[in-house]
Amino acid sequence: MRILLVNPNMTEEVTTLMWQTGRAAASPEVELTAVTARRGLPYISSRAEAQIGGVVALEMLADAGSDYDAAILAAFGDPGLLGARELFDFPIVGVSEAAMLTACMLGGRFLIVTFTAAMCGWYRDCVTMHGLDSRCAGVVALDRPIGPLHEVRERHGDALIELAARESRKRDAAAVILAGAPLSGLAERVREALSAPVVDPIVAAVKQAEALATLRPKKASQGSFRRPASKSSVGLYAPLAAILRGGHDG
Amino acid sequence: MRILLVNPNMTEEVTTLMWQTGRAAASPEVELTAVTARRGLPYISSRAEAQIGGVVALEMLADAGSDYDAAILAAFGDPGLLGARELFDFPIVGVSEAAMLTACMLGGRFLIVTFTAAMCGWYRDCVTMHGLDSRCAGVVALDRPIGPLHEVRERHGDALIELAARESRKRDAAAVILAGAPLSGLAERVREALSAPVVDPIVAAVKQAEALATLRPKKASQGSFRRPASKSSVGLYAPLAAILRGGHDG
Amino acid sequence: MRILLVNPNMTEEVTTLMWQTGRAAASPEVELTAVTARRGLPYISSRAEAQIGGVVALEMLADAGSDYDAAILAAFGDPGLLGARELFDFPIVGVSEAAMLTACMLGGRFLIVTFTAAMCGWYRDCVTMHGLDSRCAGVVALDRPIGPLHEVRERHGDALIELAARESRKRDAAAVILAGAPLSGLAERVREALSAPVVDPIVAAVKQAEALATLRPKKASQGSFRRPASKSSVGLYAPLAAILRGGHDG
Amino acid sequence: MRILLVNPNMTEEVTTLMWQTGRAAASPEVELTAVTARRGLPYISSRAEAQIGGVVALEMLADAGSDYDAAILAAFGDPGLLGARELFDFPIVGVSEAAMLTACMLGGRFLIVTFTAAMCGWYRDCVTMHGLDSRCAGVVALDRPIGPLHEVRERHGDALIELAARESRKRDAAAVILAGAPLSGLAERVREALSAPVVDPIVAAVKQAEALATLRPKKASQGSFRRPASKSSVGLYAPLAAILRGGHDG
Amino acid sequence: MRILLVNPNMTEEVTTLMWQTGRAAASPEVELTAVTARRGLPYISSRAEAQIGGVVALEMLADAGSDYDAAILAAFGDPGLLGARELFDFPIVGVSEAAMLTACMLGGRFLIVTFTAAMCGWYRDCVTMHGLDSRCAGVVALDRPIGPLHEVRERHGDALIELAARESRKRDAAAVILAGAPLSGLAERVREALSAPVVDPIVAAVKQAEALATLRPKKASQGSFRRPASKSSVGLYAPLAAILRGGHDG
Amino acid sequence: MRILLVNPNMTEEVTTLMWQTGRAAASPEVELTAVTARRGLPYISSRAEAQIGGVVALEMLADAGSDYDAAILAAFGDPGLLGARELFDFPIVGVSEAAMLTACMLGGRFLIVTFTAAMCGWYRDCVTMHGLDSRCAGVVALDRPIGPLHEVRERHGDALIELAARESRKRDAAAVILAGAPLSGLAERVREALSAPVVDPIVAAVKQAEALATLRPKKASQGSFRRPASKSSVGLYAPLAAILRGGHDG
Repeated sequence: MRILLVNPNMTEEVTTLMWQTGRAAASPEVELTAVTARRGLPYISSRAEAQIGGVVALEMLADAGSDYDAAILAAFGDPGLLGARELFDFPIVGVSEAAMLTACMLGGRFLIVTFTAAMCGWYRDCVTMHGLDSRCAGVVALDRPIGPLHEVRERHGDALIELAARESRKRDAAAVILAGAPLSGLAERVREALSAPVVDPIVAAVKQAEALATLRPKKASQGSFRRPASKSSVGLYAPLAAILRGGHDG
Repeated sequence: MRILLVNPNMTEEVTTLMWQTGRAAASPEVELTAVTARRGLPYISSRAEAQIGGVVALEMLADAGSDYDAAILAAFGDPGLLGARELFDFPIVGVSEAAMLTACMLGGRFLIVTFTAAMCGWYRDCVTMHGLDSRCAGVVALDRPIGPLHEVRERHGDALIELAARESRKRDAAAVILAGAPLSGLAERVREALSAPVVDPIVAAVKQAEALATLRPKKASQGSFRRPASKSSVGLYAPLAAILRGGHDG
Repeated sequence: MRILLVNPNMTEEVTTLMWQTGRAAASPEVELTAVTARRGLPYISSRAEAQIGGVVALEMLADAGSDYDAAILAAFGDPGLLGARELFDFPIVGVSEAAMLTACMLGGRFLIVTFTAAMCGWYRDCVTMHGLDSRCAGVVALDRPIGPLHEVRERHGDALIELAARESRKRDAAAVILAGAPLSGLAERVREALSAPVVDPIVAAVKQAEALATLRPKKASQGSFRRPASKSSVGLYAPLAAILRGGHDG
Repeated sequence: MRILLVNPNMTEEVTTLMWQTGRAAASPEVELTAVTARRGLPYISSRAEAQIGGVVALEMLADAGSDYDAAILAAFGDPGLLGARELFDFPIVGVSEAAMLTACMLGGRFLIVTFTAAMCGWYRDCVTMHGLDSRCAGVVALDRPIGPLHEVRERHGDALIELAARESRKRDAAAVILAGAPLSGLAERVREALSAPVVDPIVAAVKQAEALATLRPKKASQGSFRRPASKSSVGLYAPLAAILRGGHDG
Repeated sequence: MRILLVNPNMTEEVTTLMWQTGRAAASPEVELTAVTARRGLPYISSRAEAQIGGVVALEMLADAGSDYDAAILAAFGDPGLLGARELFDFPIVGVSEAAMLTACMLGGRFLIVTFTAAMCGWYRDCVTMHGLDSRCAGVVALDRPIGPLHEVRERHGDALIELAARESRKRDAAAVILAGAPLSGLAERVREALSAPVVDPIVAAVKQAEALATLRPKKASQGSFRRPASKSSVGLYAPLAAILRGGHDG
Repeated sequence: MRILLVNPNMTEEVTTLMWQTGRAAASPEVELTAVTARRGLPYISSRAEAQIGGVVALEMLADAGSDYDAAILAAFGDPGLLGARELFDFPIVGVSEAAMLTACMLGGRFLIVTFTAAMCGWYRDCVTMHGLDSRCAGVVALDRPIGPLHEVRERHGDALIELAARESRKRDAAAVILAGAPLSGLAERVREALSAPVVDPIVAAVKQAEALATLRPKKASQGSFRRPASKSSVGLYAPLAAILRGGHDG
């Protein structure tokens, strides 16, 4: 079973972090490949950047070929997810989608905890996009400068635990999602410190990708998620343009 | 990884069908054990029967011991699920919950198709219980006598395919869930006949159980999903009574 | 007019309390009979216990015969209510349902106040089950050990009043529901201390049972609330098994 | 127990019809008084007319004095209900509110059936105003000229039954509400012809008024449903102006 | 382009304030006419008063003739708006509707800030009436005596700014609406003091009226917003009675 | 007042059509400038294409400079809208957002009518993104090959009218939105043929842009819609990269 982890951000260290977390969670039969964006932004943290990062993700998926059983879109907020789901034949799961759906199985409502308030609005949009508002107890964040991404776990780990503990208790959250790629792997450490279960989005995404790969869902040939009709384009990344040209005859 | 499949119905043939479907979908490292109810009803098909079947499920889980990494509650409608989630330390997933959450990853809205209209209302309640109304394109059923349960797939397979095809097109459903244990395994056959992807609830449930087992969620020690306070009881199945007595000190 | 009050808990003192409160509210022509569970739990306070208590309620209703014009399911959270509504020919109302619907007629949103935080999650589930989330200003509870059930009113009455006063003001609640059978009758005492009207669930339930008895609703012979099809069963309480066997021919 | 039925329409025959239906449903201890509007419209059937009829209702309530234990606002759509609930010390229930809340206790979703399509939009607004959209299976109407109001039951009774039967089956409605004052009393006749239970709004309203009268809810002295602050006015009906002037000191 | 601003309150100073604010925002080609109620209340601040004020608004619109391209219903809470939309051929916009829809275009959720807590419940009803609950971050108010209406801006301006600043930050509101006619024009002053954009309802309403006037929407001749059928009436303001009599033949 | 109309599609004829429709609706003082995408797709008709088109829109806005008082994002579905709202200092409105918000002011629920079923799912996503599901009576489309875009109005006008007439009547829609840039200007012709009012998205967008330009909303300096923090990037269109680099210091 071959699973592709697409990091639409350009920070290699974060890809490595995600690959390590994902690899540890994957079944033995899974071959997990991770790719990092070669253009775009170091880290997506706004709606505008997600618009761009979503296209970068489509480009990376177009590059990937069709040798994968499933792909993971590895940026919280799921930039480009719905479009990717139209274009490609293999199933694709977003890390925030995977985290939220997995958290739903722990009962009641989940709390999303992240490291910078700038992302709260965009993350709330993502909850709404997935129709999960009634399962979400809120999106909360630290309110402080964060420093380098790959040090977020070390520098702010304790403050995140305290925030998660306080808010999950206050809101009766049945599960906590640690959101944002730089927090990958933190869930394990937080485990003992919190009295609610914690979901690591990358762990969730790898297992959901396995689920989809096993299900082998047929590509829709009707409705609004089938391949779009063939389109010519100008000035797009060539492999993506080829995918768009390869759509159905409408 | 040890996963327990709990069939709160008494029909062994259906348990076998589910075990076979589940076994084929499970990762190699999974040991899948299936148990059939020894009291209760041959098949749950109403809210009243689900009330009873939910207690039977709790009894079966109390019997199971703590050697499992995750359990599957294998009756569509998820009878007893939320209560089980309070009482037991290992994670538990319901088949309808698993099917719906998995279907969400195929985009847009899912259609639930079942074999008898008697279950539509109860299944709609289940969609609401999981907060997924906005992701559900409807619950539809055949309107005819169904005969023996283990023959449902053979006798009514074609009619179910036709129903699923017509309604999924009409409602622009991005995925179809074939609901009801007697339909286990039918998804594979339906695959070629439909132009939307199909979700087999047992396949979904096995993979979601694997996801939860890998996540190893900590048992909540706060909030409304922690173990209830210790309770004495009268006239309950002894292993279940023991579980209830073993709750926290409040 | 004969109304049956079913307490699916085993604490006789609480049944007595509810009967007294209900009797004082009933119309002169009402004959109010109260029965207490002979198996199960002293007091239901979790989803798991409600699963069990709901079956006990079905058993008690099966015992009751058909001489009643309406029945009250007298445990907040309404365990077994929807199933009971399928099985029996006389109308049945739950105390939480009755309290919430009655509170709706006082305008705006109601606040649910109870004596232990353990029940908040389950009560919120109940609000959702009845589709009344938009009418509910919240579920709040004391956060302290409660001691014996029949002393809750005396020991914690003042703290409950203070909690209700503070939260109803803060949330602009148009009515307060004092939830939990041990609080029956407290509403009268709270009356002068609060500036919002208070709903006693037992008073509400008796009046709603009268409403249903007067309406004499025809038992549904179509749709998902008609009697389920005839079912054989194993190991169930005999009178309940007889009811299940007596369903329609499907 | 004194209950006032306020018909904000000017058609005496309809008041009589409602009084008769209500009287038959009321408890023996109830004294039911009905009043008919002396200004306004023969029958409210639009939002604009409801705006006017709502003021007429306030005027009639201002005329009524304070000798009542509860009042019924007897026009489907509940014109003026929320305002009345602020101004007056006794509890007030609307017939559509009463019908819908009572129907909720019959399970699942209710269907509203009326005799002219002109009212469907306004009635849907009323469902939304009460926060009951998720409990409503739809609002349906005959599409034909109706003739004199007091003959609606005779002329169109059969067509209404056919419509209610067809749509309630199609939408799996657990109950049918016959909406519109001219249909008062029709529920009894429809009873045998439908396979779902039927709610007569006047019967429901009388019983809900009894429920409120028994509850004796304290008039809110906080929040948005307390008496508005004292106001002078110009050109209003004198007894209503006096009520407005008699508000609190703010 | 002729636009009519209807103030259903009797306070001329407030009409003047609104006219000045509106005139400054209107396009050069707009002729803005403002009228003040000659009966009713000095200022609407409850649901009951809105019931009355809504009829006064219908009377004022009936007086206005048909020489207008659009009308503004200039009382926050939009009393009488939906009825007016049925009766009159020119388009009509409410100030709260205009403010909320305009605020939606600034992203995310808007916060409604007003000067007295008495109006919060009624304003929340208005948000619900327009189906905008998911776009509203809350309705907040000062909690103090307000004094004369035309001095509200001066006396309480600073406190309102502080309230708006604190609550908009806390709730991540993307826009602030200053609600209530006496606050007209305050937005300009608040502008520099807040870090979120501010919507003046009168400015929004004038521009929305221009939008509707330009669109020249055809008066509906089908459905629930067409003119109601012709009705005779008793005791209504003559020009309004004439409008009601002039409806279609139904 | 300078308004920029951004067509993120590459079809000049459609830009011309929109400019003409918009110019006719604009106030005299408005200078309306329209630009056409120089890269991307001839016409956006799927979620994937909207992901790309949204970035093209951001690029075009980055090119535009800051001399505009407001901008219109002129592709139904509003690709890139929320991101644009973060990045730029002038207000931006989407054509679908403008059409829907304007339609809300015509009462009740609007119907969206378009020319190809492929867009229905994406357009429904857009309704949800704006929180307007409860105001939308549905999204309907012709089900046939459409031919060249600039001939859609001529070839399919009659079929679209028939579809709009049938579905608006059936669903009691208070307004009809003709969605999709190639339908610009069709509303005027449809006007006489339909019995519900029709909204042309370009007309609506121009007037909403005027409303925003008049409001001159302050750029948020707090919360999730302020300018994102300064970011370096690789391989992006230089003017867009400059905008991203120019963000705040975080």
